[in-house]
Amino acid sequence: MSMIVNRRDLDFLLYEVLDLESLLRTPRYSDYDREAVGAILDTAQQIAEDKYLPCATLLDANEPAFDGRTVTIIPEVSQALGAYRAAGFFGASFDTELGGLQMPYLVSTLMGGMFSAANGGISGYPFLTIGAANMLNAFGSDEQKARFLPPMIEGRWFGTMCLSEPQAGSSLSDIRTKAELSADGHYLISGNKMWISGGEQELSENIVHMVLARIPGGPAGVKGISLFIVPKYRVNADGTPGERNNVVLAGLNHKMGHRGTTNTLLNFGEGGECHGHLVGEPHQGLKYMFHMMNEARIGVGHGAVMSGLAGYLYSLDYARNRPQGRHPHDKDPNSAQVMIVEHADIRRLLMAQKAYVEGALGLIACCAFLIDRQKVSTDEAEQGRLALLLDILTPVAKSWPSEFCLEANKHAIQILGGYGYTRDYPVERFYRDNRLNPIHEGTHAIHGLDLLGRKVRMAGGAALKVLVAEIEATIAEARGQTGLNGYAEELSQALGALDEATRAVLACGDLNLALANATPYLDAFGHVVIAWMWLCQAIAAMRAREGANEGDVDFYDGKLAACRFFFRYELPKVHTQFRLVGSLDDTCLATRPEIFVGH
Amino acid sequence: MSMIVNRRDLDFLLYEVLDLESLLRTPRYSDYDREAVGAILDTAQQIAEDKYLPCATLLDANEPAFDGRTVTIIPEVSQALGAYRAAGFFGASFDTELGGLQMPYLVSTLMGGMFSAANGGISGYPFLTIGAANMLNAFGSDEQKARFLPPMIEGRWFGTMCLSEPQAGSSLSDIRTKAELSADGHYLISGNKMWISGGEQELSENIVHMVLARIPGGPAGVKGISLFIVPKYRVNADGTPGERNNVVLAGLNHKMGHRGTTNTLLNFGEGGECHGHLVGEPHQGLKYMFHMMNEARIGVGHGAVMSGLAGYLYSLDYARNRPQGRHPHDKDPNSAQVMIVEHADIRRLLMAQKAYVEGALGLIACCAFLIDRQKVSTDEAEQGRLALLLDILTPVAKSWPSEFCLEANKHAIQILGGYGYTRDYPVERFYRDNRLNPIHEGTHAIHGLDLLGRKVRMAGGAALKVLVAEIEATIAEARGQTGLNGYAEELSQALGALDEATRAVLACGDLNLALANATPYLDAFGHVVIAWMWLCQAIAAMRAREGANEGDVDFYDGKLAACRFFFRYELPKVHTQFRLVGSLDDTCLATRPEIFVGH
Repeated sequence: MSMIVNRRDLDFLLYEVLDLESLLRTPRYSDYDREAVGAILDTAQQIAEDKYLPCATLLDANEPAFDGRTVTIIPEVSQALGAYRAAGFFGASFDTELGGLQMPYLVSTLMGGMFSAANGGISGYPFLTIGAANMLNAFGSDEQKARFLPPMIEGRWFGTMCLSEPQAGSSLSDIRTKAELSADGHYLISGNKMWISGGEQELSENIVHMVLARIPGGPAGVKGISLFIVPKYRVNADGTPGERNNVVLAGLNHKMGHRGTTNTLLNFGEGGECHGHLVGEPHQGLKYMFHMMNEARIGVGHGAVMSGLAGYLYSLDYARNRPQGRHPHDKDPNSAQVMIVEHADIRRLLMAQKAYVEGALGLIACCAFLIDRQKVSTDEAEQGRLALLLDILTPVAKSWPSEFCLEANKHAIQILGGYGYTRDYPVERFYRDNRLNPIHEGTHAIHGLDLLGRKVRMAGGAALKVLVAEIEATIAEARGQTGLNGYAEELSQALGALDEATRAVLACGDLNLALANATPYLDAFGHVVIAWMWLCQAIAAMRAREGANEGDVDFYDGKLAACRFFFRYELPKVHTQFRLVGSLDDTCLATRPEIFVGH
Repeated sequence: MSMIVNRRDLDFLLYEVLDLESLLRTPRYSDYDREAVGAILDTAQQIAEDKYLPCATLLDANEPAFDGRTVTIIPEVSQALGAYRAAGFFGASFDTELGGLQMPYLVSTLMGGMFSAANGGISGYPFLTIGAANMLNAFGSDEQKARFLPPMIEGRWFGTMCLSEPQAGSSLSDIRTKAELSADGHYLISGNKMWISGGEQELSENIVHMVLARIPGGPAGVKGISLFIVPKYRVNADGTPGERNNVVLAGLNHKMGHRGTTNTLLNFGEGGECHGHLVGEPHQGLKYMFHMMNEARIGVGHGAVMSGLAGYLYSLDYARNRPQGRHPHDKDPNSAQVMIVEHADIRRLLMAQKAYVEGALGLIACCAFLIDRQKVSTDEAEQGRLALLLDILTPVAKSWPSEFCLEANKHAIQILGGYGYTRDYPVERFYRDNRLNPIHEGTHAIHGLDLLGRKVRMAGGAALKVLVAEIEATIAEARGQTGLNGYAEELSQALGALDEATRAVLACGDLNLALANATPYLDAFGHVVIAWMWLCQAIAAMRAREGANEGDVDFYDGKLAACRFFFRYELPKVHTQFRLVGSLDDTCLATRPEIFVGH
């Protein structure tokens, strides 16, 4: 049993729940068939298991160190990235004309997940590089693309995203980093950036920082932010890295988890000129950044899922092999101890992990497939519909796994008991790693505001309408089917509660009050979406179960059991939450700061 | 603002919610009055803030190390324990005739909480020592008490509890450690014990291990377990520590958190004779151990509360001083950023912490007071009633804080954002420390089984009846009061749901099925109990608010707001959970292990 992937589940998502084959029949992906996709996943699994997984504990215990001059990282990281690079995976989703492999996004996403399950500390570097390259590809000039893209797609240069500053974490409106046009036509960057992952390392020949900064004289707030390419080494005319560009590492952050990916405080232009290259138009930086945000945010949610999956697989294997205790009805101390997987509560902890992790992976796959379908669709109305769907699902895809796959990791520790609490077993590491995900790439609260403050309101509520229509179509499919009819009814009721709460909020004229419970709304909304994902998976499982071989019957039964678990143990919770949101409760909003502890 | 205690809240619990003064009027506690209690709390707070708190981060980063011969711990730990010892606090709750301070248990408990909030790694040592001394005091012979108790009560010798073994963590029925009577009348102990906190250290002159072992020929299972005193150093006739007793440290466990307390694998009798002294009668060991279990378990729950409190206080202070962002209605980027405590969701995260932590502290205080009232009561029926109440509340007092004050620590990290995820701030440490509490001293699941499998059934349901009567008395008091009437009604409904679920379970003839959802029952039962605690606190706050000074009005308003939060955001959840439990759902129990991932 692999500790990083359930390949049967990937096939289920690719070919039974979603329809990857329809995508492979389009001209864009004509180089791929089911066999080719399988071969790619084989290669990725092998690299992840051989190079990423074995050094995960070591990397966590020996985080990158900075001696004031260079950052040292254990050599296994460079070796693992070398294998990833050699397989061409930095370019997995880029077009062949750019030197990429032009894989469907769905495939490159699920493939990437194996690396993140195996070693989240290493997989952060390609994740950031691909994101930065994507943005360059979308908005850079031809000259910028020619200079920076090839070494990034080849994995020789890495990338970063430089948004936050010490005084402006969540509030990009307040960033201060400046970009002043010099006499010789360069933008000179000056300021400090905080929380920059991969901001310094010696793993790549150069680092391409994508930096948000203000051109003096521009508008205040987010409308005056521009995007710049700021390389660690300036680039020579022949494309090789040249002299240092005065991006200086001020310090590494020492995190609870995710220790393998350096996280940095960077100073720009303190010791001399720091050159930046304006991307696109001035003052459009945030728009460009947000254009790529959906993918980055889905990526964060996916990372959370994969930490959750790694914990689930590990604790399942443990539970199947650890004898301890007896069933409640067995009072004979001379009877043999049972494997702990026999205990109802261990099964509950496993089933909850499965329901969270596989449900959330279904959502990530669904979002990735939406990106693919947008790309190949030739129908403008269809493209618009898919874009709306992706927009409204993105805060959920980022946030729900970050919350509930962290809970899954908590359960994995519980299954291992005392052992799970020690660093001799990986489950405590997954729990520490995963705690990052509700914080970065927009905090949990910010995604609540995004969902309830923007996404459900956008285009006159069009995005929500599209989503509801999709969910209702699934409900209609399940309705009347033995074994699924009850779920259809329950999901329909949950959707009704969602609708009622949303209407109450939208009817509220006081925006602060309307958004005061945006986070509980986000969580409950996510539960409805994940229940929908489970109903989709249950439909596919019911369809395929008849006539399947024994192993597949087990697999499909597992899907049906997890669906049942989610509908019985989880979905009913949304009614309480939606009632709270719909009541426009002001308990928190109205709290005076003085009363928390008194005097 | 103290980072380890809200003294105003302690006074509120001691004198406004509970009635410590009634206890201080009894002969047993006649040495104490309100002033004396205040002085004790002052001293404790000072030692905790001056000696425990400053080295907490250092101790976490420099966990005890074992070089194969001795265990090294940073010297600050010994200094802190020296101050604790000098204040006489090892003997806080022991009778003066034993050399103790004979404090009310309620006072020594709340006092001890400050040390655990300041530095859980250090406070583990006295906690274990006091527990071991308590057991000796209750069941040891006069000779054993004379030899071992004084140095423990003086804090010169420390104690441990040796229950678990590598093959028997939760299943004490399967322990194998042997105690064989030698020709010269000693019991020779042989075997391995796992997860022994404080099992080795150089902080104390001797270590008194309280060890569960089997005398060959005894009954199988838990009925054949005896209790032994096994000192690290044998004790000379003059009471001084003598030669080593062949208790050998096989290794330290390296934990995610709680790193300051050594956690050990111990080998008994491998390299030579290991002498043990039988406590009480043979085969009664587990009964003796369980006699002290209530206090130990309440102590674990209390530790969870104090980690939660430390995170709450730290994140509250941070939220009041960190500017970031603006209210949703404010679209002007030139307006000043607000302190994050102004944001509704930050207030939600603070209010949830307050509701969890102060509600749970109320329960811990209530349980400690029950122990005191049992001690001073002269009415046998009353004593029995108090004992039943304590028995049924104990699994809740251990488990609810372990689950929800861990959630509080999760929220504290979230408030600090990226900073909270770094080791430069203490909140990630609290989160790591607190993750231990649902595991040790009986896992979360085991307390569910204890509650639903034993406590609600014991004495024909008498314990549950006593508890329900107590809660109903509080409901009756609140009923009709403006501002509390609604809570009274909601708590009454929740109690009805609890009753219905309990009846359904008790009517089920299949014990395995009846107990399959014992954990969700435990969590929901806990919510009802904590709601009761909040109603008690709200009644006290309403009573005192009128005519109070400004600072006190803020304090009482905070109590009323937290009560409102708990009743609106938390209590409604129990209906979903009790419905699930009452439905005798077999989703988890019936799951075949093969289906989790398929083949």
